Amino acid sequence: MDYKLLIKNRRSIRNFTNQTIDPKILDEILHETCMAPSSSNTQPWRFIVITDPKIMEKISDESKKNLVQQIENNPNTSLKKYEDILRNSSYNVFYNAPCLILIVGQNNYPSFDQDCTLAAAYLMLAATEKNLGSCWIGLGEAIIDQALRKEIGLPDDYQVIAPIIVGYPTKIPSMGSRNEPIILKYI
Amino acid sequence: MDYKLLIKNRRSIRNFTNQTIDPKILDEILHETCMAPSSSNTQPWRFIVITDPKIMEKISDESKKNLVQQIENNPNTSLKKYEDILRNSSYNVFYNAPCLILIVGQNNYPSFDQDCTLAAAYLMLAATEKNLGSCWIGLGEAIIDQALRKEIGLPDDYQVIAPIIVGYPTKIPSMGSRNEPIILKYI
Repeated sequence: MDYKLLIKNRRSIRNFTNQTIDPKILDEILHETCMAPSSSNTQPWRFIVITDPKIMEKISDESKKNLVQQIENNPNTSLKKYEDILRNSSYNVFYNAPCLILIVGQNNYPSFDQDCTLAAAYLMLAATEKNLGSCWIGLGEAIIDQALRKEIGLPDDYQVIAPIIVGYPTKIPSMGSRNEPIILKYI
Repeated sequence: MDYKLLIKNRRSIRNFTNQTIDPKILDEILHETCMAPSSSNTQPWRFIVITDPKIMEKISDESKKNLVQQIENNPNTSLKKYEDILRNSSYNVFYNAPCLILIVGQNNYPSFDQDCTLAAAYLMLAATEKNLGSCWIGLGEAIIDQALRKEIGLPDDYQVIAPIIVGYPTKIPSMGSRNEPIILKYI
């Protein structure tokens, strides 16, 4: 797909059909994700691919619990505006997505967080190119519980940078508005 | 340009012809950069566009000085491997690029660093699509000096996330090798 069309077509998608994703397509997406640039070509990104809805729900509950704790520890946090949904036991931060990809990195690598974020941009574009929708779910990143980390294969020294849901959209919402580029100085 | 071809064509470019970039093309690149997703669509990215080689050299010298200081403060830093070039007074971290774009963000915005990094991915792809080369220059981000910050229009509460050089490549190097995607777990 043409790049200019691709970046116009990408949306944050939060409603999915129940169609599962062919593992071959997921594999293509991950290969294209790995084409992202990284600091000194270290490619520090690792992936955890979850298609089991029960595991997604566990991660959602764990992350909500930990973010509520962050709000209680610091009521001035920017998370405060999400408090109602985080305390809602029936709210799944990953919606009804058929697939969740966690982009994770070892936290002693320099720039691993930026490199994993560059990979996230590539992943969301690769998904769009295959007519899939995606959304980076910031509220799903707080996975602390040791048993759950072990269950999903997340080592102690790894950090979740980008939890991204992927699936076939029920419908494509209109594009979020964009500001003009703000140039602080042109010299 | 087709997306799959685009991500194959993107390279980190460090050698440029002396051809300047048409401001209309730079404007298109910045518009396409602003199509990146951001947390709650906050679009926290701001830009400083520098085409004056003397200013680029000033920033290079300032950043090198500050990074050398970081190495002196902490000899175990991952910057240590760059010490020789950082101490080399004739080394310009921005090479001979005709243009440097700083993607900067206000440091009290939640997720501004990740959002600016997503924008950086889009910027480098947009440049490639216009047959321009680019490279994220991590060694160019340490701008502390108040007078220089003022000269380039960088407010006190803003942080440089991605200094990216852009220009027409003298030649396209071969693609850096890529590892297969490493999946820690598939459940």
